[in-house]
Amino acid sequence: MDLTALRTANPDHWSKATAIRALTLDAVAAANSGHSGMPMGMADVATVLFEKHLKFDAANPLWPDRDRFILSAGHGSMLLYSLLHLTGYAQFPLEEIKNFRQIGARTAGHPENFLADAIETTTGPLGQGIANAVGFAMAEEMLRAQYGEKVMDHHTYVIAGDGCLMEGVSQEAITLAGRHKLSKLVLMWDNNNITIDGPVSLSDDTDQVARFAAAKWHTIEIDGHNPAEIDAALTEARKSDKPTMIACKTHIALGHAAQDTSKGHGALTDAAQMSAAKEAYGWTTGPFEVPADVKSAWEDIGKRGAETRRDWEERFDKMPRGKRETFNRAFALDVPKKLSATIKAFKKQMTESAPKLATRASSEKALEVINPIMEETVGGSADLTGSNNTKTGDLGVFDIDNRAGRYVYWGIREHGMAAAMNGMALHGGIRPYGGTFMCFTDYARPSMRLAALMQIPTVFVMTHDSIGLGEDGPTHQPVEHLAISRSTPNTYVFRPADSVETAEAWEIALTSKKTPSVLSLTRQGLPTVRLEHKNTNLSEKGAYVLADAEGKRQVILIATGSEVHLAMEARDLLQAEGIGVRVVSMPCMELFAAQDDAYRKRVLPGGAVRVGVEAGVRQGWDRWLLGERGKYGKADFVGMDRFGASGPAEELFEKFGITAQNIADKAKALL
Amino acid sequence: MDLTALRTANPDHWSKATAIRALTLDAVAAANSGHSGMPMGMADVATVLFEKHLKFDAANPLWPDRDRFILSAGHGSMLLYSLLHLTGYAQFPLEEIKNFRQIGARTAGHPENFLADAIETTTGPLGQGIANAVGFAMAEEMLRAQYGEKVMDHHTYVIAGDGCLMEGVSQEAITLAGRHKLSKLVLMWDNNNITIDGPVSLSDDTDQVARFAAAKWHTIEIDGHNPAEIDAALTEARKSDKPTMIACKTHIALGHAAQDTSKGHGALTDAAQMSAAKEAYGWTTGPFEVPADVKSAWEDIGKRGAETRRDWEERFDKMPRGKRETFNRAFALDVPKKLSATIKAFKKQMTESAPKLATRASSEKALEVINPIMEETVGGSADLTGSNNTKTGDLGVFDIDNRAGRYVYWGIREHGMAAAMNGMALHGGIRPYGGTFMCFTDYARPSMRLAALMQIPTVFVMTHDSIGLGEDGPTHQPVEHLAISRSTPNTYVFRPADSVETAEAWEIALTSKKTPSVLSLTRQGLPTVRLEHKNTNLSEKGAYVLADAEGKRQVILIATGSEVHLAMEARDLLQAEGIGVRVVSMPCMELFAAQDDAYRKRVLPGGAVRVGVEAGVRQGWDRWLLGERGKYGKADFVGMDRFGASGPAEELFEKFGITAQNIADKAKALL
Repeated sequence: MDLTALRTANPDHWSKATAIRALTLDAVAAANSGHSGMPMGMADVATVLFEKHLKFDAANPLWPDRDRFILSAGHGSMLLYSLLHLTGYAQFPLEEIKNFRQIGARTAGHPENFLADAIETTTGPLGQGIANAVGFAMAEEMLRAQYGEKVMDHHTYVIAGDGCLMEGVSQEAITLAGRHKLSKLVLMWDNNNITIDGPVSLSDDTDQVARFAAAKWHTIEIDGHNPAEIDAALTEARKSDKPTMIACKTHIALGHAAQDTSKGHGALTDAAQMSAAKEAYGWTTGPFEVPADVKSAWEDIGKRGAETRRDWEERFDKMPRGKRETFNRAFALDVPKKLSATIKAFKKQMTESAPKLATRASSEKALEVINPIMEETVGGSADLTGSNNTKTGDLGVFDIDNRAGRYVYWGIREHGMAAAMNGMALHGGIRPYGGTFMCFTDYARPSMRLAALMQIPTVFVMTHDSIGLGEDGPTHQPVEHLAISRSTPNTYVFRPADSVETAEAWEIALTSKKTPSVLSLTRQGLPTVRLEHKNTNLSEKGAYVLADAEGKRQVILIATGSEVHLAMEARDLLQAEGIGVRVVSMPCMELFAAQDDAYRKRVLPGGAVRVGVEAGVRQGWDRWLLGERGKYGKADFVGMDRFGASGPAEELFEKFGITAQNIADKAKALL
Repeated sequence: MDLTALRTANPDHWSKATAIRALTLDAVAAANSGHSGMPMGMADVATVLFEKHLKFDAANPLWPDRDRFILSAGHGSMLLYSLLHLTGYAQFPLEEIKNFRQIGARTAGHPENFLADAIETTTGPLGQGIANAVGFAMAEEMLRAQYGEKVMDHHTYVIAGDGCLMEGVSQEAITLAGRHKLSKLVLMWDNNNITIDGPVSLSDDTDQVARFAAAKWHTIEIDGHNPAEIDAALTEARKSDKPTMIACKTHIALGHAAQDTSKGHGALTDAAQMSAAKEAYGWTTGPFEVPADVKSAWEDIGKRGAETRRDWEERFDKMPRGKRETFNRAFALDVPKKLSATIKAFKKQMTESAPKLATRASSEKALEVINPIMEETVGGSADLTGSNNTKTGDLGVFDIDNRAGRYVYWGIREHGMAAAMNGMALHGGIRPYGGTFMCFTDYARPSMRLAALMQIPTVFVMTHDSIGLGEDGPTHQPVEHLAISRSTPNTYVFRPADSVETAEAWEIALTSKKTPSVLSLTRQGLPTVRLEHKNTNLSEKGAYVLADAEGKRQVILIATGSEVHLAMEARDLLQAEGIGVRVVSMPCMELFAAQDDAYRKRVLPGGAVRVGVEAGVRQGWDRWLLGERGKYGKADFVGMDRFGASGPAEELFEKFGITAQNIADKAKALL
């Protein structure tokens, strides 16, 4: 690259973009760790975006109608941190740049949304940012339809690298965006031809522009170091009636000895090479020093949107009060006051009618009373709407000509759905929930983990949660997926036993602000086990005594979901023999673990043998069976220690010994 | 559709294809469960493929050079079962068709490779079959280069539906196939416009033909009910120098009242509608009855390849004996005799030199001695070759002009890599291993589960296995991934403590025939802890006493991987205070669980407090801490109960209390 030509062609642009490059080099060198090349390559694109297109106000990072900027290529985090520092975000003083990648810094190795207001999402696992961005753009469309364009009218910009585009989730995301003509979504592809292992050609020969066109995107190809081309492309993108992909031909590690090589992807810390690069840039200040005029020009960019924001506030204040309150409530993740009474009434009705229902059907019934009073819920399913029971009558279908629709047909895209739901939740104003089969949490897993890490309350509705789904066989029968979900920090895993517990699970999931929920629901019908109405949400404590022992307590049966009624039947068998049995329903282990010792001991006292019952693997159960007893006792577990099989559900429960009789026998063997 | 025109245009073809449709209707109706529409829609394509193109011999389902036929749209399993029954596979008598989806039948809800020789792979989770097929095709290329085209020269055919193509993994797979010009891979897309939720257009508007072309595939569009067009397309595909996608326009549930509707996707069991469909087909026999002439014509097809196979055997027998033995050994999944001695010598050398090495580097060193003596190993990495240490000097790189290369640059495609590795293992003759970061087992998870379910010994090399990776932060730091891997049935999860245990893990992984392995390896350097050479593979029992207590045994420390040396240091601290401490290294919980009670009690006797140490979540540990002690004792755990953070590794271990001092303190607190 002829840097001199770039420098002289547009010196103002050059100095601003170079500030990003220099800060990146200095921060990575100080940390002796990180990725220098990507920010150096994409500095020109980002500079033009922030200077001329992005609607933002550095003084108000949470302004709801700001444009969203997402760095899907999260390893290039110094690009984002440099921009946030330069434009004057209060949370990003120079100290933060100097502390790049140190414990306690906001400038973590990869952007972490929970560390700073201006970080829209957590990226690093590749492809996630693209799929988040699709969710952001859908949320914007939905809220624009709901509140009007005076209040919601912004773009979503995402920078993605070759790695993002190779990940399968990117295909799910871009085909969704193309199908829904998300015209306010703009993807800038850092087309630098380099991956860690070498040139992209080593592993890929895809015509990315043709690929996006096949997904019905508008496409533009530019020189990613030419400010005029970048500007024109962004202008064109904003006018398109389709999502736009701008292929930006760039040089990774521009101007450094490692330019255009895979070495340039990593940490460029050689002092002499850094000096040479800075000299080539015409950058003469010391480490972490940005010339005052350049910093000032960047800070002006940071203030560029202030007036637009003030105008927006005026318009917002003119909205009818009820709309404003709903808007603010939804963005604050508060539930409507009447949710609690609605759930109580629903529970009472369920207890009284005591239906035999699959919990997936119970979930639909609960949603039928929740969705009408929570305008912010958005439901969906990865092509299993009728099986996941996620669609209620009033939602309407989100589509090109019905942006107010609150139900999304996600297609066969579990991963893209989960990531886009995360994007919706991160955008604010929307409470997304979406369904697939519990077994296919496997496909959605990378985004489910990120929901937990990002501290957002995405709700995953996972039906067909055991061998109880029957004939579809072991590929569709989860056995380890409860354990997997529970192993993830900051995740509520609910396995409700009947309609009452299902409604309680929904109430907790929706009132939770920083924790995602997994609802593990049955395909098969279950009797109502909560036959006495309580206004209190018993599931909130994670586990509770469903039926106590008659006579001396010799056995405690602990069960979840579809096995609770089996535990109750086993109790009948044992009580008939004069053996006192307590049954504990444990719809949420995480919430039970969070209770104080006294409560846990009250529910699970010592002095009795214990049998855990769940149609899944034992992993995660031993704490309740062995580790928290008042005194030494014996314990056993009735569940699965292998993959399932194809056959009718009732026969499978027999085959694998998950029966009331076997539970009773195991308990007796311990006595 | 005008069925009459189809019937009369080619009555021989029609009756054969209709046998598939009729058997499908009957089997689904008998099971009252299943998917009728897909086999009914793709019967014509499958009939032409089997009749005129597929190289197979029904009497010899395991013939190594057969063409592979993969039903990626696994829910349409009756298509496959009908074909296997009709062509005369001994494992598929009519009884099996009648027992569709019943316990013990080979005709499970979805095709299960371990239930019958002729089922090449397990499908059902969508998109997997396509990615498996890429692995099959790569294996064929590799073995052709290794053994010559006289011995290996076959095609891989895969039928995929809209769901398969919407899943992200399909993009990873097709871009791999396009990059590598896998010209003997043919994908037949069941282009029926229907998904479960409704028409494809509800959720997708992708131009699939253009998408495949962008991935450098040859593409053909045909009427999937026109035998001549099908035949011509397959002929053209076989001549192409690229992988070929044939877009087959079909009618789901052809001829049934549910044709072209999403209802047609499911179980069509209405008796009247079934009769009407059969009448429209001109099919007059009773349920499960195939006219003798039709059955006979199909059986002739099943024998079509017998002579070709005999010719192949003659050619095979002419190969030099050494080659034949290697071929047979590799297909039998036997390791070379000298592997054992090689590993022993390597271990001795490691014990003697006692290097401080990251276990990822130990793994590379082990592979440097393994790969030269096992021609069947194929390594690779999802764009982290230098980090995963998966490439050894002698492998060569698999590429268009070097099909003999044994190293694959998989690109940023963890899921596609895992699924394609499964395909290679299923093909036979290849022992695949591939690497990514442990945290990104999340991306590969659906295929890792399938490796376990399918009982194939794929090896997943997962490095950077804890907060020990440092600055990349919580998106890259696994905490729950050991628990996730261990929760999966039939999976060996190895977390070796040093070079010696790493070599032992490799030996077990490579001698295993029916169980996949996850190698959880560190980024950071670890001291050698096995300082006394043993020929015996101590890891084979899962856990063993690394250092016993001096004096009275009061404490047992159980640790894995990078925490074993911390446990040893904690032992020094405690022994210095006169507290007797045993250290147990537990590189593989599954293997330890498989030992007899006596061994487990010998390693973990009662009468001492226990502390488990692992830089991951506690889930899965309680059995060893609480559940298997000789008598009541106290236990604690040093590990992670939250996500990690970005910062230097040593500081993170301090921050999260994973230190020798903390281990010692916790043990003392229990005494």
